[in-house]
Amino acid sequence: MSSDEVLRSLREFVAERDWAQFHTPASLARSIVIESAELLEHFQWDEEHDRQAVLDELADVATYALLLADALEADLDEVVLAKLERTKAKYPVEKARGRSTKYDQLQD
Amino acid sequence: MSSDEVLRSLREFVAERDWAQFHTPASLARSIVIESAELLEHFQWDEEHDRQAVLDELADVATYALLLADALEADLDEVVLAKLERTKAKYPVEKARGRSTKYDQLQD
Amino acid sequence: MSSDEVLRSLREFVAERDWAQFHTPASLARSIVIESAELLEHFQWDEEHDRQAVLDELADVATYALLLADALEADLDEVVLAKLERTKAKYPVEKARGRSTKYDQLQD
Amino acid sequence: MSSDEVLRSLREFVAERDWAQFHTPASLARSIVIESAELLEHFQWDEEHDRQAVLDELADVATYALLLADALEADLDEVVLAKLERTKAKYPVEKARGRSTKYDQLQD
Repeated sequence: MSSDEVLRSLREFVAERDWAQFHTPASLARSIVIESAELLEHFQWDEEHDRQAVLDELADVATYALLLADALEADLDEVVLAKLERTKAKYPVEKARGRSTKYDQLQD
Repeated sequence: MSSDEVLRSLREFVAERDWAQFHTPASLARSIVIESAELLEHFQWDEEHDRQAVLDELADVATYALLLADALEADLDEVVLAKLERTKAKYPVEKARGRSTKYDQLQD
Repeated sequence: MSSDEVLRSLREFVAERDWAQFHTPASLARSIVIESAELLEHFQWDEEHDRQAVLDELADVATYALLLADALEADLDEVVLAKLERTKAKYPVEKARGRSTKYDQLQD
Repeated sequence: MSSDEVLRSLREFVAERDWAQFHTPASLARSIVIESAELLEHFQWDEEHDRQAVLDELADVATYALLLADALEADLDEVVLAKLERTKAKYPVEKARGRSTKYDQLQD
């Protein structure tokens, strides 16, 4: 399976329904937050969860993330990799190893 | 570029820092919401936005989404495509065309 | 201390800065989500937290909640109490006692 | 109506259902985010909204905000006023007037 197939399928789904008119970057950003919170709902009271139900909500988050990248004419994989390079620099292995501390609080 | 490369890079990044211990499904779900809201912050007062800044936040959302799928031993592309099939059934083209109405309020 | 004093102080703060122009219901709803996620950030990796830092973020959530009620010409206390009455009906004591189950899954 | 009445009613509601056991600061923070996103859902595609439906969701946000303040043994009104004082200092009237710019980007 390739991301290309996913993107092609999503574009076709949207085009058939004439929904691109609703998919401004702002409304897609709102949609990502809304779906993320539905995902979080599975962990509201404890960490037990129904794996398939969690994946269903994660699918919605990822779908809107792909549509937002597409609306901004960006390739989501490239965006992730480019950001990863910068994150690596902010969290050097020797300082960050085994710690969840935020980068601006990492001590020497 | 392939999603495989992205996933491999993310796994290596996490392993080098020994961060898998923090990446429970619950904490990854929280992280997705947190990053989504940082994305939304670019659209807090209006719809104007800095494209690169938006992509940077989107990268964080997508990164945690990939890590959550991985933690649940799922392939995010497959998850998105499987959900898309069910969404198509909920939003038939003839009813949903050009409307942002939620599926349970789509009239005949 | 009374809520009236809080509301009066917030209105004055907004008026002095001529910020009511930015405070549409939609932008206030976005602001509430953004601040809520900053609150959640204190619980991203574990449940330990800095009480004062949590209260600071909670203050932001409550501030925007008060401003949204005000923008909709509603009294937030009354809104909370009215909703509480309906929630009581959805979660009868005898069924809901000691359970975090969602109302639509409460069994007889 | 006074906030005291609201808090007393909420505490009674929780006590009758023996729900305090679920109301850790972390789970209340998650609940605030979840309800905030349900509020945002009313503004997902455009700014038109059903006022009463928005107030219903806002009630849920405010309810969990009050419960979180209570769990932290804080008075929410005081918390809001204390934060307002600090916010005033970050956004001096002469610099912030009529601008939605974030404080750290306010130019002289």
